[in-house]
Amino acid sequence: MKLGVYYYPEQWPRKQWDRDVKNIASMGFQFTHYAEFAWTFMEPEEGKFEFGWLDEAVDLAAKNGLKVIMCTPSAAPPIWLTEKYPETLIQNVDGLVQQHGSREHCSWSSMKYRALNEKIILEMAKRYGNDKRIWGWQIDNEPSHYSVEDYSAVARARFIEWLKVKYTNIDKLNETWGTSFWSIRYQNFEQIRIPNSNEIPQQANPHAMLDFRRFNAAECADFISFQAKILKQKVSKDQWVTTNFMGQHIPNDPFLNKDLDFVTFTSYPVAGYAVGFGENGYRVNSPSFNGFPHDYFRSIKGTTAIMELQPGQVNWGKYNPQPLPGAVRLWLYQAFGQGSAFVCAYRYRQPLFGGEQYHYGMTTPDGVTPSPGAKEYIQTIKEIAELKAKFKPAKEYPAQLTLSKTAILYNRDNIWETNYQRQSYQWNAQFHITKYYDALRSLQVPVDFIEENADFSKYSFLIVPAYQLVDEALVAKLQKFAEKGGQLIITCRFAQKDKNAHLWEAQFQAPLKKLAGVNVRFFDMLPEDRYGKVAYQGKNYEWNNWAEILDNEPGTNTIATYFDQYYKTSSAISQKKSGKGSVTYIGVETDAFKLEKSVIKDIYEKALSRPLEELPDGLDINYRDGLWVATNFHSSENRKVSLSPKAKILLGEVDLKPCGVLVWTE
Amino acid sequence: MKLGVYYYPEQWPRKQWDRDVKNIASMGFQFTHYAEFAWTFMEPEEGKFEFGWLDEAVDLAAKNGLKVIMCTPSAAPPIWLTEKYPETLIQNVDGLVQQHGSREHCSWSSMKYRALNEKIILEMAKRYGNDKRIWGWQIDNEPSHYSVEDYSAVARARFIEWLKVKYTNIDKLNETWGTSFWSIRYQNFEQIRIPNSNEIPQQANPHAMLDFRRFNAAECADFISFQAKILKQKVSKDQWVTTNFMGQHIPNDPFLNKDLDFVTFTSYPVAGYAVGFGENGYRVNSPSFNGFPHDYFRSIKGTTAIMELQPGQVNWGKYNPQPLPGAVRLWLYQAFGQGSAFVCAYRYRQPLFGGEQYHYGMTTPDGVTPSPGAKEYIQTIKEIAELKAKFKPAKEYPAQLTLSKTAILYNRDNIWETNYQRQSYQWNAQFHITKYYDALRSLQVPVDFIEENADFSKYSFLIVPAYQLVDEALVAKLQKFAEKGGQLIITCRFAQKDKNAHLWEAQFQAPLKKLAGVNVRFFDMLPEDRYGKVAYQGKNYEWNNWAEILDNEPGTNTIATYFDQYYKTSSAISQKKSGKGSVTYIGVETDAFKLEKSVIKDIYEKALSRPLEELPDGLDINYRDGLWVATNFHSSENRKVSLSPKAKILLGEVDLKPCGVLVWTE
Amino acid sequence: MKLGVYYYPEQWPRKQWDRDVKNIASMGFQFTHYAEFAWTFMEPEEGKFEFGWLDEAVDLAAKNGLKVIMCTPSAAPPIWLTEKYPETLIQNVDGLVQQHGSREHCSWSSMKYRALNEKIILEMAKRYGNDKRIWGWQIDNEPSHYSVEDYSAVARARFIEWLKVKYTNIDKLNETWGTSFWSIRYQNFEQIRIPNSNEIPQQANPHAMLDFRRFNAAECADFISFQAKILKQKVSKDQWVTTNFMGQHIPNDPFLNKDLDFVTFTSYPVAGYAVGFGENGYRVNSPSFNGFPHDYFRSIKGTTAIMELQPGQVNWGKYNPQPLPGAVRLWLYQAFGQGSAFVCAYRYRQPLFGGEQYHYGMTTPDGVTPSPGAKEYIQTIKEIAELKAKFKPAKEYPAQLTLSKTAILYNRDNIWETNYQRQSYQWNAQFHITKYYDALRSLQVPVDFIEENADFSKYSFLIVPAYQLVDEALVAKLQKFAEKGGQLIITCRFAQKDKNAHLWEAQFQAPLKKLAGVNVRFFDMLPEDRYGKVAYQGKNYEWNNWAEILDNEPGTNTIATYFDQYYKTSSAISQKKSGKGSVTYIGVETDAFKLEKSVIKDIYEKALSRPLEELPDGLDINYRDGLWVATNFHSSENRKVSLSPKAKILLGEVDLKPCGVLVWTE
Repeated sequence: MKLGVYYYPEQWPRKQWDRDVKNIASMGFQFTHYAEFAWTFMEPEEGKFEFGWLDEAVDLAAKNGLKVIMCTPSAAPPIWLTEKYPETLIQNVDGLVQQHGSREHCSWSSMKYRALNEKIILEMAKRYGNDKRIWGWQIDNEPSHYSVEDYSAVARARFIEWLKVKYTNIDKLNETWGTSFWSIRYQNFEQIRIPNSNEIPQQANPHAMLDFRRFNAAECADFISFQAKILKQKVSKDQWVTTNFMGQHIPNDPFLNKDLDFVTFTSYPVAGYAVGFGENGYRVNSPSFNGFPHDYFRSIKGTTAIMELQPGQVNWGKYNPQPLPGAVRLWLYQAFGQGSAFVCAYRYRQPLFGGEQYHYGMTTPDGVTPSPGAKEYIQTIKEIAELKAKFKPAKEYPAQLTLSKTAILYNRDNIWETNYQRQSYQWNAQFHITKYYDALRSLQVPVDFIEENADFSKYSFLIVPAYQLVDEALVAKLQKFAEKGGQLIITCRFAQKDKNAHLWEAQFQAPLKKLAGVNVRFFDMLPEDRYGKVAYQGKNYEWNNWAEILDNEPGTNTIATYFDQYYKTSSAISQKKSGKGSVTYIGVETDAFKLEKSVIKDIYEKALSRPLEELPDGLDINYRDGLWVATNFHSSENRKVSLSPKAKILLGEVDLKPCGVLVWTE
Repeated sequence: MKLGVYYYPEQWPRKQWDRDVKNIASMGFQFTHYAEFAWTFMEPEEGKFEFGWLDEAVDLAAKNGLKVIMCTPSAAPPIWLTEKYPETLIQNVDGLVQQHGSREHCSWSSMKYRALNEKIILEMAKRYGNDKRIWGWQIDNEPSHYSVEDYSAVARARFIEWLKVKYTNIDKLNETWGTSFWSIRYQNFEQIRIPNSNEIPQQANPHAMLDFRRFNAAECADFISFQAKILKQKVSKDQWVTTNFMGQHIPNDPFLNKDLDFVTFTSYPVAGYAVGFGENGYRVNSPSFNGFPHDYFRSIKGTTAIMELQPGQVNWGKYNPQPLPGAVRLWLYQAFGQGSAFVCAYRYRQPLFGGEQYHYGMTTPDGVTPSPGAKEYIQTIKEIAELKAKFKPAKEYPAQLTLSKTAILYNRDNIWETNYQRQSYQWNAQFHITKYYDALRSLQVPVDFIEENADFSKYSFLIVPAYQLVDEALVAKLQKFAEKGGQLIITCRFAQKDKNAHLWEAQFQAPLKKLAGVNVRFFDMLPEDRYGKVAYQGKNYEWNNWAEILDNEPGTNTIATYFDQYYKTSSAISQKKSGKGSVTYIGVETDAFKLEKSVIKDIYEKALSRPLEELPDGLDINYRDGLWVATNFHSSENRKVSLSPKAKILLGEVDLKPCGVLVWTE
Repeated sequence: MKLGVYYYPEQWPRKQWDRDVKNIASMGFQFTHYAEFAWTFMEPEEGKFEFGWLDEAVDLAAKNGLKVIMCTPSAAPPIWLTEKYPETLIQNVDGLVQQHGSREHCSWSSMKYRALNEKIILEMAKRYGNDKRIWGWQIDNEPSHYSVEDYSAVARARFIEWLKVKYTNIDKLNETWGTSFWSIRYQNFEQIRIPNSNEIPQQANPHAMLDFRRFNAAECADFISFQAKILKQKVSKDQWVTTNFMGQHIPNDPFLNKDLDFVTFTSYPVAGYAVGFGENGYRVNSPSFNGFPHDYFRSIKGTTAIMELQPGQVNWGKYNPQPLPGAVRLWLYQAFGQGSAFVCAYRYRQPLFGGEQYHYGMTTPDGVTPSPGAKEYIQTIKEIAELKAKFKPAKEYPAQLTLSKTAILYNRDNIWETNYQRQSYQWNAQFHITKYYDALRSLQVPVDFIEENADFSKYSFLIVPAYQLVDEALVAKLQKFAEKGGQLIITCRFAQKDKNAHLWEAQFQAPLKKLAGVNVRFFDMLPEDRYGKVAYQGKNYEWNNWAEILDNEPGTNTIATYFDQYYKTSSAISQKKSGKGSVTYIGVETDAFKLEKSVIKDIYEKALSRPLEELPDGLDINYRDGLWVATNFHSSENRKVSLSPKAKILLGEVDLKPCGVLVWTE
């Protein structure tokens, strides 16, 4: 795992560059990162390019033994661009044209904007594409318009084109969108506007909204691909091309960018979130919330990396506490344990001006003193170098991980659709999925996120959470997975609708009947201050935001029942054997997710014929290349790791302090 | 009471119509409902009409013995209409033009929109207006723009016209609007804009706002009347004409549409409201909240009906719980007991697509299986048929009901005015009024809602709640009512202002002096977390959102006093004899309304010389045509009805389970 | 202290004027106030002036022995003005042009609007500028656009001009705004828009925002100065010129209007705020919150006055309780004690129409009966007349006040900057400063608010709260203050940045090292529900929104330490001797401010070598011209004043009831 750091030469006096780049190298970093947001310096006027300063910066890096990640500058176009071509600007949900002054304000759908991007990228590619000092390329930055969706004229035009391609004729669209409802029927594609709940008296059509979300994600991916194609045609095969998505930004679909060499993400664990364990949990974050993007982004192309990692206190949270001492090192070791290809610290110098002044860097504002985070980087870089010296990489993958390896079937359609048609304001699809991920992680089960076209047979366990939109092929594939011996766990809202988000002309969630041996009698949801109970294995668990009341087909068993409400004794969770495998249907969602974790644990233990150790809160254990890496995310309690007798400790102690790290081989 | 159900043939394949309509009939329904939101199918292009499909549907209904309610399609204009005539679109408070994509987005004030409505309605009237298979007509749907008020240019122009008619000259308007305040004075009507708090730095003029609310309600009524006039001129006298207002939608004034044969409403008791009794009250609603629109809409023309009744779970609430089993039948029996002419279930089939997918129908999504709600309909239809066979309709109206019959003086002006000039953010005029209604209902007192021009002498009891805007004629009429022997109960905020919402140039609420023998020293309001106390009959009651401190004239008695605050021992409720009757003034509002209920009970018992039985929470008793109908809205407790010895039970048991129904004669 | 009251003759029938003005005089008032918001009556059409009515009103005042304050009408332009010149209208943050209908909707930046103002003001000045019956002039009313900031084209153009003057060339602006961050760099001034967080996807540049706040305040001040200049050129030197700012309206900077003779303010202590002591504190307000503007506005020119004082219940709060009986008199005595030149009651008659109907006046709505507030005015006017007869004004200023007299260094830059870059959503700069003011007040320490260019040597104590933006000159001046024997108390966030809001290229808050002998290791902030502890003098105090962790230089002592968190035992408050004086740095902010008050008390007692008496909650003591004035703001408890043996009571009793007043000499 290589470690690097962002540097923005254009933000500092020329005379400080030598000192700064030298210091970066002396801290132990192996690479730096240039040119992000530097468009106005590379092309100060249209068609007039200035790369001299960047050449110097690259020279400096090389001189100090640092590789360079080069970044396309699309996220921050110069003022002349939007002044001369205002049609490139996005427009928000209230119709306000977004203006120059921050970033990500130009439309992915503007061909003029793309053409201007093409020019600058070609210039960059020409200049650096065969330069061995350049390690790889990042496209754009956190592709998104942050919380703004684009309702501009160019976006609308592209949406219409996208719909034409998808539906060919307007009748097909009318049928799919169900426009016989409320007389919405369109006569031609040109009549369609981007669905916008602010410009109609009632909620926008959900099928239109789903297509808009698909289009919006596709358009983002297309813009990245557009840049990737330019780069791939011009730069050396030795230079990789990626982008850096935000870890939990739902409007994108990173799986659409498989044309990249790999996909990276940005990671800010401490920024006023109420996530974490112990009195100071907000200073650390939790293993699963923080670890999720590692597995998610790795699943796209088999590898991932953190393009930006928080260096210390930041400035943009609701409140911005100091991370716990040791937290930066902790995150680095989690990244290491989860297989990250590299981690790039964001950023070398703390800015003295602009919108992120209070955002820590590797130096304090004086530009030379290492920040507390920098010290943790320096320590970690050294330790990893020592570990590398000690360990033998050719170790066999441990059996217990291989046997329990689990796939979570995941796509964004289900999140977009259920979040727009939530039925209870408490429904949150991403929360539902990450909670299952959390359960698996605390049971030390390795997880891949897969799409429908994946090879299910590579896994013994498959979890299908809140997967609302299905087709027959998928249902058949799932059934086959179970019949061939897989343990299939399906959770609530599964198969409510087809891929067009139409209900089945059948009983609720009809595909469940054959697949899981259950019929959904109805679903229920409670006010936020009322709790229903579910009984499982002699214990009661509270729920209030989603419950499906199940009727079993012959051969299916109830394993958890509702304990109250007018449907008490009905099944909440049902299970059946299916060929050589099993299908479990979990029709209820609890807030605490302890019920779900217990059920999963029981299924796995039975299938694997061994007890699963449930890690206590905060403890995280990962495996990489023969090394076991334990990290303690608990902010105030120690966590003890039970090592097998053959374990050989390479780093740390068995009794992990908060933010403690233990590395061993077996 | 006839029972029917909505059907939208245009939303289903032609080949299913026969089956569906036949099933509707076989469930026992007596009528169906067509053409709502079907404009795009009746007039797919401007001036090109297609009624063949609707003819077929009407044929089918007739063949199956079902009458048809026909609906004008104005709520959902086709895309060609708003594309070709964008001036028909409403504009919201932020200036955003509302667009095609849901419903109710065209302006009542657009003459172009009206002309296009006229065309299609004339076509419909020509075709079905003398067709004996058509039972009657519904105009539009839930007339409103939902939460959007119309600030479009056409609305502004019509508002100016309305003002010209009202005020004749600008001086009169200036005087009425008090425009010498803040230099607002207008020189001519054309300078006036619709008052919009978003487009001025401080709050809009309250008189302008009141006139806008009046205009807005009048414009809605005018649009309905415009359609009614077209229909009335063309359709047979045997076909009635109505519309369906929303039960608690305040911006309308349904009393303005007395030109309809009667006014109906739509009823959705379970959609995430915190209304109801017992642990699961949110699954049932309460007798008075649910029963209010029956009395309110019946009061307009002497009869009403439910045009849409919730069939089960819906989709548009904050959360959408399952109604308690039996709740649909419970609501049907309450409707029956309150005299509803018919109830139309909304809707036959659960939609498979569009904005209301999770909205239950009479069938589950498969289109054939009866939903739980359908089963309750089927049962109720049968029961009512049996009751009809048993009972003798010519029964005399029971004396205890006649004698206690009460009028509530009600108009929307007072609600609009006090809600805009609330003085405390906790003030809610509709809450105040419905709580008095609730008190009466639990005392088994029948209620009419009346306007100022009604004949007060038909009642022995008259309640005048929060009636802020009065004139001398009304005050004199109220006084006469009391003097002739009526029990007059007036509540806080009465007569603060004249009909133009000017304070009197006199002491606060000056008309009270002569009418009720009290002077209002001042009014007070407390923070939401502080409570003052009022003592009545040895008990203390808490208040915090409104209190008037009263000084009595000679001959007036204090019956409740403030127990604390700096004005303790002052009167909160005063009472005097007035001729043969009495006047009670209740100057305080409590949250729990127990004080108000006790005072009312005492007044009634004294006047009627008999004890009033206060029904326990959830129990509701109605009388219709010789039948007594008790329903238990409590969600978890049984309620016992004390029958007189001569009572003869026709249905149910005396000990009512939750959602239980008891019908008897005496 | 003179007492007067607003009267709006144009809002009442001519025939009532004589009665009303006579009554004003008979209540004891010495002056009245005319012409505010009367533009439409003075210039009903452009260029057509009508002053006859105002002449009559002035005659009437004179006839009744009342002086007149005349007011320019700019706050409420007539409809013809904005209809004919729509370019004068402001535009809000969402781009909505604000319209006629309330007040303050015209742009200070519009030269057309200014020209029209100039015309009417010249007419007024010509007519009344040398009229001895006119006491003085108020410009505009509560200058502001209330909560609306002006984003109109004229405002943008003026902002650009302001920037050109400030920066001369665009490079200087780019450097100052740090536009190398995110490629924001401008090529010319014309490209700049007013920073608007609604029109960019992420937060606007903080330097641009700071400059906009400066411009906005300067533009307001410039508009007032523009009017002042017109008046000053035309009216007699005997007539003073002022304006009336709102007490706590932060977007203005009243210190910019030193060209006025003095600056007044408007005071509304009871309007639904949760401020005050005891069960009914919301009916009284607190000594320091209510007293703050007296000291703040007095500090500008050495004198101030209340231009509007709440007369009783008002209408515009979230809720509007009755003030406690005696509260109006209490506020008048506090104003008297704090040296107010006059108090003008707002307003004589309670309006019968318009936007402030429920706003009390000196009469009830009947126009003649004195309101409860009026009775308190009448009493106070009499009492003050009697006091004047008794007392000898030439008394020496008491030594204990002179010796403890304290300056608070204050400017709006720090408030604007820290509130925009708050780091924790709990940060509130004005709260921080007023809490220090409150501490001083309860210790009976007199306070001046001073600017950086003031003569610090006039004070023995100087408090510098949350003063984020500094330069070297200021730091040197502060150091000199301490070295010469001053007690300097500096609080958190001091000197984080230079005057351009750049961080120092140095350690955090580098100027503290030499000045206060401390280094700020870092700063921390906690979630709203977590509290850290600070130990001081054996007691623990809770904090959660701001903490700086301090390292002392040699010679600096820790006087308070963090009691928990990972930095426990570190310094939270440090102190050092500096020449003949001392410097104390308080790096933490607590919610309750008891820690801060204790530290201040100890510093003062040591420096003054006498104990300071801390007044109990609600008790306030002021000194004016030889008179001591004690007022009890506690709403439910008595407060006893300990008088010295030589004290001579002129009014009241030593045991003050709620709202009680005591006046004595010593």
